[in-house]
Amino acid sequence: MSITFYYAPNSSATRVHWVLEELGIAYDKVKLDLRAGEQHKPEFLAINPNAKVPALVVDGTPMFESLAIIIYLGDRFGADKGLWPRVGSGEHAEALAWIVWGSVTLGGTIFRIFYNTSEWFPAESRNAQQAETAGKEFEAQLGLLDQRLRGREYLVGDGFTLVDAANAAALGWALTMIKVDMTRFPGVAAWLDRCTRRPAHQALYAA
Amino acid sequence: MSITFYYAPNSSATRVHWVLEELGIAYDKVKLDLRAGEQHKPEFLAINPNAKVPALVVDGTPMFESLAIIIYLGDRFGADKGLWPRVGSGEHAEALAWIVWGSVTLGGTIFRIFYNTSEWFPAESRNAQQAETAGKEFEAQLGLLDQRLRGREYLVGDGFTLVDAANAAALGWALTMIKVDMTRFPGVAAWLDRCTRRPAHQALYAA
Repeated sequence: MSITFYYAPNSSATRVHWVLEELGIAYDKVKLDLRAGEQHKPEFLAINPNAKVPALVVDGTPMFESLAIIIYLGDRFGADKGLWPRVGSGEHAEALAWIVWGSVTLGGTIFRIFYNTSEWFPAESRNAQQAETAGKEFEAQLGLLDQRLRGREYLVGDGFTLVDAANAAALGWALTMIKVDMTRFPGVAAWLDRCTRRPAHQALYAA
Repeated sequence: MSITFYYAPNSSATRVHWVLEELGIAYDKVKLDLRAGEQHKPEFLAINPNAKVPALVVDGTPMFESLAIIIYLGDRFGADKGLWPRVGSGEHAEALAWIVWGSVTLGGTIFRIFYNTSEWFPAESRNAQQAETAGKEFEAQLGLLDQRLRGREYLVGDGFTLVDAANAAALGWALTMIKVDMTRFPGVAAWLDRCTRRPAHQALYAA
């Protein structure tokens, strides 16, 4: 088996990095300098035509999209390590629902806030009312996550899974930029803390 | 095995409906009247707290997110029918990458266009410049899809898979609302036609 992981700091590659560390599998890392435009070089476009990180080449097959990569790694390596439910089980259905929800529904709202508030985008292309609407949806979604975490420590099953890593990474990143009173969502705050205190997460920043 | 499918017309439930018909498995259908607010009733919120269709209850486990449901159905029923690669194969990696790309990257761009052009949203919350930027990204993504389809009839492997159904349904819906000169993307146009002419897709509209 061979795995090569293409990444850059402060990107959605971070959650894949966390997952690789949780799984404890062997892999090679290739860091791309996005400012220098390395993601646009022909040899990288052959791996990910979207010119984005993360990308993974696994036994010669190129993959892109952090969500796809995490599901793939979970299916292939996660069940044996207790970090992902067995394919076809009821918990696998729940894992897919919650990990996709984090990327599509919650992630969609997060990006909608960014497009309309972040200085990464020209002021003329931002709309304050759209940002406000998306901000309310974000809080409603945090409420839903808080409700899911009532009486449970992790999103699916009895223990930590890659679903938690994927969603905690995305949400943790969003909360560095979106101001929210997290005392309103104590279950989410405690879960984020539980997830990010894990050794595999700490290792990302120690490296 | 028991499967109950909750849906409404003109929603992302349509692509799940297509997939269920392709797989030819037995399922019960429950149509929700969204205008009457049936998605907000406590019995439905117990299945999908997001108050959205599609939702699926499979052997008692509730699922939401059309992307999650399609991956689940593919893994469980698709490989035996030649409609989904075997879990762990290189083609499964490619299937996950392309189906997630369709929902997260292409789907994200489509929603960004809608939020900034559709009369479903208040005029004061729309931004013409953001719509234009997203429109250019949409065309770039169609170009990338066209490139992928050069020399191949379907997105993954040698034949039609649920990856094609998921993405053709989403893109077909988007193109009813976003004006694009599809003669610039002949591979995509031919693929959309091949996919939507399938009996399982035709059956959705005959019913």
